[in-house]
Amino acid sequence: MRQLLTSLILSFTLGTAVCAEVQVHATGDMGVVIERTTGSVLIIDQSDMDVIARVEGFGDLSHASAVFSPDERYAYIFGRDGGLTKLDLVTQSIAGRVMQGGNSIGGAISDDGQLVAVSNYEPGGVRVFDADTLDMVADFPTGSKTIGLVDAPGDRFVFSLWDDGETWIADMSGDVPALTKIPDMGVNPYDALITGDGRRYIVGLFGEDGLTTLDLWADTPEAKRILPNYGRGEDPLPVYKMPHLEGWALAGDRFALPAVGRHEVLWLDAQNLTELGRTQTHGQPVFAVARPDGRHVWVNYAHPNNDTVEVIDTRSGEVLHTLNPGPAVLHMEFTARGHQVWVSVRDANRIDIYDTDTFEKLGEIPAETPSGIFFTARAHRIGL
Amino acid sequence: MRQLLTSLILSFTLGTAVCAEVQVHATGDMGVVIERTTGSVLIIDQSDMDVIARVEGFGDLSHASAVFSPDERYAYIFGRDGGLTKLDLVTQSIAGRVMQGGNSIGGAISDDGQLVAVSNYEPGGVRVFDADTLDMVADFPTGSKTIGLVDAPGDRFVFSLWDDGETWIADMSGDVPALTKIPDMGVNPYDALITGDGRRYIVGLFGEDGLTTLDLWADTPEAKRILPNYGRGEDPLPVYKMPHLEGWALAGDRFALPAVGRHEVLWLDAQNLTELGRTQTHGQPVFAVARPDGRHVWVNYAHPNNDTVEVIDTRSGEVLHTLNPGPAVLHMEFTARGHQVWVSVRDANRIDIYDTDTFEKLGEIPAETPSGIFFTARAHRIGL
Repeated sequence: MRQLLTSLILSFTLGTAVCAEVQVHATGDMGVVIERTTGSVLIIDQSDMDVIARVEGFGDLSHASAVFSPDERYAYIFGRDGGLTKLDLVTQSIAGRVMQGGNSIGGAISDDGQLVAVSNYEPGGVRVFDADTLDMVADFPTGSKTIGLVDAPGDRFVFSLWDDGETWIADMSGDVPALTKIPDMGVNPYDALITGDGRRYIVGLFGEDGLTTLDLWADTPEAKRILPNYGRGEDPLPVYKMPHLEGWALAGDRFALPAVGRHEVLWLDAQNLTELGRTQTHGQPVFAVARPDGRHVWVNYAHPNNDTVEVIDTRSGEVLHTLNPGPAVLHMEFTARGHQVWVSVRDANRIDIYDTDTFEKLGEIPAETPSGIFFTARAHRIGL
Repeated sequence: MRQLLTSLILSFTLGTAVCAEVQVHATGDMGVVIERTTGSVLIIDQSDMDVIARVEGFGDLSHASAVFSPDERYAYIFGRDGGLTKLDLVTQSIAGRVMQGGNSIGGAISDDGQLVAVSNYEPGGVRVFDADTLDMVADFPTGSKTIGLVDAPGDRFVFSLWDDGETWIADMSGDVPALTKIPDMGVNPYDALITGDGRRYIVGLFGEDGLTTLDLWADTPEAKRILPNYGRGEDPLPVYKMPHLEGWALAGDRFALPAVGRHEVLWLDAQNLTELGRTQTHGQPVFAVARPDGRHVWVNYAHPNNDTVEVIDTRSGEVLHTLNPGPAVLHMEFTARGHQVWVSVRDANRIDIYDTDTFEKLGEIPAETPSGIFFTARAHRIGL
């Protein structure tokens, strides 16, 4: 009897502990931080500006990203080594993990949250998994390194082929996936983005100047070149890091775009995608990210200028503030309504948190070689 | 001993039950439904298309709305009778309630989630509360019925005075609130909205034709009239219900706007706010709401045409589909990425759920005279 009683008390205590843990951490203001070199992930609480837990066992996170389930309970972490790991933010443990490819480069989650897709260099293609079980439900081999995978409205995934210069649209809404292939997207697509409304897919090219866009609202989307002067030019510049296109958010009536190999940010008209002007910057931009209200754009830079962040005013195109967070600023993530920005400073093993209105530093969080920062609010956005 | 054991078993069982409940309901895909006549609120699970709980005791909800805390744990419900009620979605119980005015007309939450504001007809003005404790932290009496309260980036609230035709901006970011008053907004503002990027505040007028806008990015925002032909005209039409402006979302490069007193939806250029054209509709529109990707606009109508919903194609301006959900369609809420829409059918005591791609009805939920439907994803949007 005493043994039984002890067991019951233990169970009850355990039950209570779990309850308390769960109740404290509603998931709407949580997030994850990728720790590059240790293959671990920090679960953070944005409101408390604090770490909830470190979870280990994600494999190679040297180039990793994350998406979230619609209920903001699960993060799907895409590792460089082809690992797809489902992290439970509530229990702070790994809920599932599959090695789905040999060399992977990002993923996406469908608009209904039921499918997770991963794009692979090796073997080239996209594989689609049940978000609940991680069972594979579709495989799209491309025979090419595959990049620029995003979700699009209508249960679709869009991705591009490095070797063949094609973009494929996989419509998952029917009983059988329907594939649409768009040729002539350009030489060696290296990254892509979809605009926040899910209408335009824009591909960056490594093998030629310019970018290519698709209007996904069209009955038959066709490749269309824009910005013929965007790129390295006839006399190729040394490029320390190809800029990421993900951060191409709308800033008022224009887009801000990191130039390739130049110390410049380009401004584009949001409607017709023509160039409006350029801002001279501190270095070669890696990310140019609009604050959610579009009033400012924050920019970080490639080596050897990667200790600096500049804030550009959208209306004037002028740099209005400069920050020096520290060595190797890799990523910046705004809170959903833009009142804070979190900045990963890899070689200082630190996340810095800034007030986006006053630029005051509000706090910092220790992290092991942090790179990507992802807040759960991404669950509710198209194409993130 | 037996008694003690029984008690422990009961406690443990109870503990387990609570845990299970909490773990199932991560908050990112939850929402609330206002039940008008019973003063109750349904807590719903969008993914499961099901009701989690009914909570009672919200007072007069005959004209009610809701906002959410950044962690998506709490809903703040604004009742017609001046009641401000904080609903805990995790424990499914009322966490706080104050009677803050005599006759209230909606509220907002600051971008950092720390302040909740309510606008009142009686006594006229806006009161601001600590989101945690519901203690009042600021009071802005206006001497006028006060309407069109929204949050704006930078810890600001914006609202308008029916009697005086002014808009006030309350900046809560400093130690002491700073008030900016903008005159000449027009005769009898009845509703307002802020664009999704938090830049433009647009006021609808009851006492004259046209609308008035403010550019909140300007150092000194000034009232500017737009759409001089928007309104009832020189020979006033019978207006069955003034249209809501809240749903004025961006649809591609244009806004859709319900006409006043006419069977029309107006299309405006999103940049310069000039009229592009009109679509003839089934009735006097109440809400014209863009699907999150902007490709379609869903419209409901005033009595006696309020059993119908029309779906308009943004590019062509044509009605592409008509639904007849039933008597008294009051509100439509899209899922965050737009794959479903939930429709309240008041006099059928039902919520209908539709696939926005196929228009197929996916399910329904019983509800007592439902009006507003609000998903927690609103926590992450400016101005909702």
